[in-house]
Amino acid sequence: MAAEGEPTRIMVAVSESTIKGYPHPSISSRGAFEWTLKKIVRSNTSGFKLLFLHVQVPDEDGFDDMDSIFASPEDFASMKHRNKIRGLHLLEFFFKHCHDIGVACEAWIKKGDPKEVICHEVNRVRPDFLVVGSRGLGPFQRVFVGTVSEFCVKHAECPVIAIKRSASETPQDPVDD
Amino acid sequence: MAAEGEPTRIMVAVSESTIKGYPHPSISSRGAFEWTLKKIVRSNTSGFKLLFLHVQVPDEDGFDDMDSIFASPEDFASMKHRNKIRGLHLLEFFFKHCHDIGVACEAWIKKGDPKEVICHEVNRVRPDFLVVGSRGLGPFQRVFVGTVSEFCVKHAECPVIAIKRSASETPQDPVDD
Repeated sequence: MAAEGEPTRIMVAVSESTIKGYPHPSISSRGAFEWTLKKIVRSNTSGFKLLFLHVQVPDEDGFDDMDSIFASPEDFASMKHRNKIRGLHLLEFFFKHCHDIGVACEAWIKKGDPKEVICHEVNRVRPDFLVVGSRGLGPFQRVFVGTVSEFCVKHAECPVIAIKRSASETPQDPVDD
Repeated sequence: MAAEGEPTRIMVAVSESTIKGYPHPSISSRGAFEWTLKKIVRSNTSGFKLLFLHVQVPDEDGFDDMDSIFASPEDFASMKHRNKIRGLHLLEFFFKHCHDIGVACEAWIKKGDPKEVICHEVNRVRPDFLVVGSRGLGPFQRVFVGTVSEFCVKHAECPVIAIKRSASETPQDPVDD
């Protein structure tokens, strides 16, 4: 155990707050990140590298963000650009914190269905393990919202650790995050 | 992250080899243990404490281990004692390795259904997270043998990380361990 060698590469899937929106991280991704630093990385800042993946869900109709339904191709382009910038601001939250404490990291954005994209990125990037936040929903709530963490635990091709929100951090509507 | 404070307490559930029997650890528990040292503990040996739990399954008829079915109460007592000693020898494998590299640990034996007992001990001992080895069985094989890791991921009241055996370590019959 003396020689350290390559750092342990931990992928952390992060999402934006459903309550406050961008650039705020969701309660569960902030919790999973802080847990990873406190319980795994600890003072061994050179022993780990964090890989932050944020998956943006494309709007089905593309109008979520518009004031008007009469959008030009330029409107679409600028909307896509704005959305990308917002995603980057979310990643900045994590990136900056790592930089402040001296933990190496990378961060990137992908588009698609979060659970599918996370598993795909695990295959591509081959982290040592994956950390995902979990809202800790009951079976009834899960039916309606699906859970990314549960899917990843089953399907990701690396070890996965799901970190539930603490009871004190659970918002009034537990589906919120 | 400068001050270290209390070590991170990792519970590691360990079992004996189904192929070689006591005192040899199962492939999956040895793998989960080595993974934890290599990927989590790394050189930060004072930052972690490992808590080894071995659950022994009581024989249904109590005669598994006997040369004769005409057992006296003394035979039973000595059999129970022998079994306990074997469990301690299994734990010694993990304990000794931790001692050699300077990682604090505790180890103990319980009797019962492993998946139930592990979740019960998580509630009692409150580790920061639980590491369990997994044989990585397919859905068909799982129906017949049940899987401790899957149960713990769902029911243990702490984060759980299941470590699958590598393909190169999987024995001819994947149910073996």
